Amino acid sequence: MHDRHPTSQVLTMDDQTFLIDCGEGTQVQMNRFKIRRSRINNIFISHLHGDHYFGLFGLLNSLSLISRTEDLHLFAPAPLESILKEVFRVADTRLSYPLFFHPLDQEGQIWEGAKATVSAFRVFHRIDCWGFLFREKEKQRKVDIDKAREYGVPASFYPRLKEGSDYDRNDGFLVKNEWVTKPAPHARSYAFCADTLFEPSLCQYVKGVDLLYHESTYLEEQAEKARLRFHSTASQAARIASQAGAKRLLLGHFSSKYTDLDPFLTEARTVFPNTELSVEGTTYLVS
Amino acid sequence: MHDRHPTSQVLTMDDQTFLIDCGEGTQVQMNRFKIRRSRINNIFISHLHGDHYFGLFGLLNSLSLISRTEDLHLFAPAPLESILKEVFRVADTRLSYPLFFHPLDQEGQIWEGAKATVSAFRVFHRIDCWGFLFREKEKQRKVDIDKAREYGVPASFYPRLKEGSDYDRNDGFLVKNEWVTKPAPHARSYAFCADTLFEPSLCQYVKGVDLLYHESTYLEEQAEKARLRFHSTASQAARIASQAGAKRLLLGHFSSKYTDLDPFLTEARTVFPNTELSVEGTTYLVS
Repeated sequence: MHDRHPTSQVLTMDDQTFLIDCGEGTQVQMNRFKIRRSRINNIFISHLHGDHYFGLFGLLNSLSLISRTEDLHLFAPAPLESILKEVFRVADTRLSYPLFFHPLDQEGQIWEGAKATVSAFRVFHRIDCWGFLFREKEKQRKVDIDKAREYGVPASFYPRLKEGSDYDRNDGFLVKNEWVTKPAPHARSYAFCADTLFEPSLCQYVKGVDLLYHESTYLEEQAEKARLRFHSTASQAARIASQAGAKRLLLGHFSSKYTDLDPFLTEARTVFPNTELSVEGTTYLVS
Repeated sequence: MHDRHPTSQVLTMDDQTFLIDCGEGTQVQMNRFKIRRSRINNIFISHLHGDHYFGLFGLLNSLSLISRTEDLHLFAPAPLESILKEVFRVADTRLSYPLFFHPLDQEGQIWEGAKATVSAFRVFHRIDCWGFLFREKEKQRKVDIDKAREYGVPASFYPRLKEGSDYDRNDGFLVKNEWVTKPAPHARSYAFCADTLFEPSLCQYVKGVDLLYHESTYLEEQAEKARLRFHSTASQAARIASQAGAKRLLLGHFSSKYTDLDPFLTEARTVFPNTELSVEGTTYLVS
């Protein structure tokens, strides 16, 4: 048996802590890596294979045991709702917090915050399975206050400067936006492709993302097994990253049959050099 | 957060490996303590609170992933059956082995092997909850072959000697059983009392057991909290052990609020000296 745990990822964006999938033992791992469970307000479950959600029962329970009161939003394939209800019913559990269940039933935006959105898209697995795209909203340009004053732009016009407008001065002089502002910081994006077959049509959903997580359960020598089991190879993941114009690729979900993961990296980098292996407990910065 | 895991125990008796309860992470702990999952043929779940069964989904799944073919018997409160069916259905899982579900619905013997039996009895928790008594069958006396020959008992009569019969020799001499046999080895017993209120009527089920596991979630200073939450104190567990005439008491299920467990031992030993704390990964011999 290998020493890797089932899938779970934590993403921080827009001052939110998102939990993506929740395999058995996720709580223990969160403790180990000092991630505060109480900060999670939104959980996304890609599909109902156990290695992606068997830790959810315990996590939802524990949040109640520590008397959470904030809303918790759960985005998951529809059948999970009745399973959870039954698990809570037989235990006579009344959660201490409101749990909102959002069944995944159509592609598109499923969450919106002040500074980011989350979209869901279908991937191609043996059962109903979803990928998630986390994207910061386009940011505003930054006003260079010294320059704006120099050009005589009043502070009341700054909000429009941030949106990119030029300023038409009373004396007929047009202050070009780019003279008094700095470009908006890059709006970052992260795509989680869950468990999936190699399917180039996925590229449309993850086009140009800063970081693409794509499973690579097998190496290319096992491409046929990958296909039969609705999984991908490292090389296939790299082809998706390349075709989608992703900036960086993160491989994961390696079959427990492999103890040495270096060949995954080597294989993928032949196709897409900017590839990394996901390692338990590691934080990856999206930039 | 304390570093203790939810409940699960492994008992070896009658060449069988029994699993009692299966909290989240049980598989990982079994790996850690080198317990072979494949040897388990019977699983007993006391009740449907998550800390006693959330690891079961993953374990049943994994046994299928490693292509188990032997029958597996699961004894648990009835509602678990439909939960498991739904979990397997939504994952499109067909187990590689036959899983027999035995709903716990009446007290008495629920399992019988060549050399042991298992009985279930109701305990007193907030929801339907069961204790289990594991008991070796009465063993046969051992023939002292030298003595038997000396007294002229033919080998064909040995099976009856083992059952305790005297031998009526042809010459009219009666060979007393105890002259040619040694006493049967002690038939050992272990009782698992699950999560329960202090309830002296439990003593009838666990009378004279060699080892009694009784929960002690709290210390006596929290007796009222224990009562309200359908749990017991260390002192109450010791009173059960004492009144039942158990030979030895094993305490467990300590609230995570307590980091120092020594007071549990001290408190229980005042009432019942032969008490031990259950420690993760430790093996307790029943004798």
